[in-house]
Amino acid sequence: MPCGTQATVKAMYPGQVRETGADILLGNTYHLMLRPGAERVAALGGLHTFMNWPHPILTDSGGFQVMSLSKLRRVSEQGVTFRSHIDGSEHLLSPEQSIEVQTALGSDIQMVFDECTPFPVSEEDAKTSMELSLRWAERSKTAFGDQPGRALFGIVQGSVYAGLRESSAAALQEIGFHGYAVGGLAVGEGQNAMFEMLDVTCPALEPGKPRYLMGVGKPDDIVGAVARGIDMFDCVLPTRSGRHGQAFTRYGTINLRNARFADDPAPIDAESPCPASRDYSKAYLHHLFKAGEHLGAMLLTWHNLSFYQQLMAGIREAVASGAFADFKARFEEAQRVSAAANGSG
Amino acid sequence: MPCGTQATVKAMYPGQVRETGADILLGNTYHLMLRPGAERVAALGGLHTFMNWPHPILTDSGGFQVMSLSKLRRVSEQGVTFRSHIDGSEHLLSPEQSIEVQTALGSDIQMVFDECTPFPVSEEDAKTSMELSLRWAERSKTAFGDQPGRALFGIVQGSVYAGLRESSAAALQEIGFHGYAVGGLAVGEGQNAMFEMLDVTCPALEPGKPRYLMGVGKPDDIVGAVARGIDMFDCVLPTRSGRHGQAFTRYGTINLRNARFADDPAPIDAESPCPASRDYSKAYLHHLFKAGEHLGAMLLTWHNLSFYQQLMAGIREAVASGAFADFKARFEEAQRVSAAANGSG
Repeated sequence: MPCGTQATVKAMYPGQVRETGADILLGNTYHLMLRPGAERVAALGGLHTFMNWPHPILTDSGGFQVMSLSKLRRVSEQGVTFRSHIDGSEHLLSPEQSIEVQTALGSDIQMVFDECTPFPVSEEDAKTSMELSLRWAERSKTAFGDQPGRALFGIVQGSVYAGLRESSAAALQEIGFHGYAVGGLAVGEGQNAMFEMLDVTCPALEPGKPRYLMGVGKPDDIVGAVARGIDMFDCVLPTRSGRHGQAFTRYGTINLRNARFADDPAPIDAESPCPASRDYSKAYLHHLFKAGEHLGAMLLTWHNLSFYQQLMAGIREAVASGAFADFKARFEEAQRVSAAANGSG
Repeated sequence: MPCGTQATVKAMYPGQVRETGADILLGNTYHLMLRPGAERVAALGGLHTFMNWPHPILTDSGGFQVMSLSKLRRVSEQGVTFRSHIDGSEHLLSPEQSIEVQTALGSDIQMVFDECTPFPVSEEDAKTSMELSLRWAERSKTAFGDQPGRALFGIVQGSVYAGLRESSAAALQEIGFHGYAVGGLAVGEGQNAMFEMLDVTCPALEPGKPRYLMGVGKPDDIVGAVARGIDMFDCVLPTRSGRHGQAFTRYGTINLRNARFADDPAPIDAESPCPASRDYSKAYLHHLFKAGEHLGAMLLTWHNLSFYQQLMAGIREAVASGAFADFKARFEEAQRVSAAANGSG
């Protein structure tokens, strides 16, 4: 799911995002409640109409951004009181308020409001935080009520502690949700620890419901997480990296700002179905980034989103045909070869 | 002609620019010789290939930017020595050097190197400058030589002095060019003075060759200039205004940053063939500009270029059917009505 943080996938027209193969966009409750405001979006016909995206939208609960972006936070049993990073105005985010905002936006898949446990954290503090998130999950479900055609996902917490992850998963399923996310990972614990938590968490989740790993990740994170049973991902990496000159390729990542591309007449990927990957030389992309031109961000974001969607399409096809183990082995071999060729580990 | 200053029409994909109806793009010799460099562009297959624009390109001579952007200029009979605004490196632009750069870029329509006369200027200084530009025009023609399929345009100078404009036009036609530009206008002299100079200059130019008014302008400047015999225009206005939130419409200009659009569900122009004009509410555009999102600049640039191309298509159709006087009267009436409605003169 490409990130449409502020009601736009940065530097992309919505039609283009769709053409890369994206089915669902992610919108950010924290950003949208502050600007332009959920009531305003609702009055304008909802987020789908507002941003011209007539396809599914998943919204996060605001729990992550309120901790990472806002100022002067106070966490209580009730929720989180904070000041806007835009104008300093005071706001409350609680389970009820988060669901009210997500519902006003018209979100198809809503997330329970949870506390974003910091990392690193002691097992005791992680347990306290996870239990608060469980109580908030229950309140979120009550607030969500019955919204035909829309879903509410619970979020497994517990930091890097296997026992807490298992307790969280069990308690959430006791409450009952349409799908389950794994939160609080990709926050600095490293890929091994993340995979260990997935090894514990995924088997603890009922098999028939979607599993969503929040905020992940690099291509190898995704392939490894799919191997462990994850279905859905969101990440700012393809869009944010694109704006900073970094391109994902089948042969590793490259940064188009690098002087070695100044005279390179080859496109990023001559075989790609994406015009951004195929129809512009690396020399031209290098020039656009050096000159600070919008088109650089536009082309590389397009390329990266297309690359990610092709990766996901390949994964889906491999899973459907029972060939995912082969797919994963080929993917990892290509990663090893390109890492060796680029002289990095 | 949309401006593709640094080998890109800012915030637009080249295919989109073409779809708005544009036939020719303008490239800037000054910018391109400094970055990425004319030799580099030539080695990469020329400007058309480099920027993925397989249609005509007109390049200016660098004379205007070298005076407005560079530092530490010395003007001599030979040309202009200057320091780059990017890295301070010293360069010479002369008629020979300008044509060499334009030819290396692969420009289809090249401009003679001229001195950009400042405004205001005394008649004596304007005459001295115009005569220098004539000598440079002759050297430009020699340097251009014979380039089958490509054109070289002379540039009429003479500031706001009718006699100088007539002398310049006559002397340029003595030398002989494929087309003639009118330079040194839209530099602060006002629309009336500009139109007076066109009233003098256009009748002094042979009727069978294209006439190009450089750096113009607002829609009413264009309509008035066509009435006086101008065929071609370039201007940064639609692209630059678009990046700053200003939209041209049939009912005057509006700035989407204005708070009165925050809740406006209507698009800029529901009747437009351009998706940017038709498929996004003013409230959404307002939000994008307030949030500093790329998509704001992308959509408004697209809208403005489309608006300008529709204006030009309307003019061409009216001229071809002998109905331009009616077209102009209707255009001016709409301008009066919208100016009155917007409470401005």
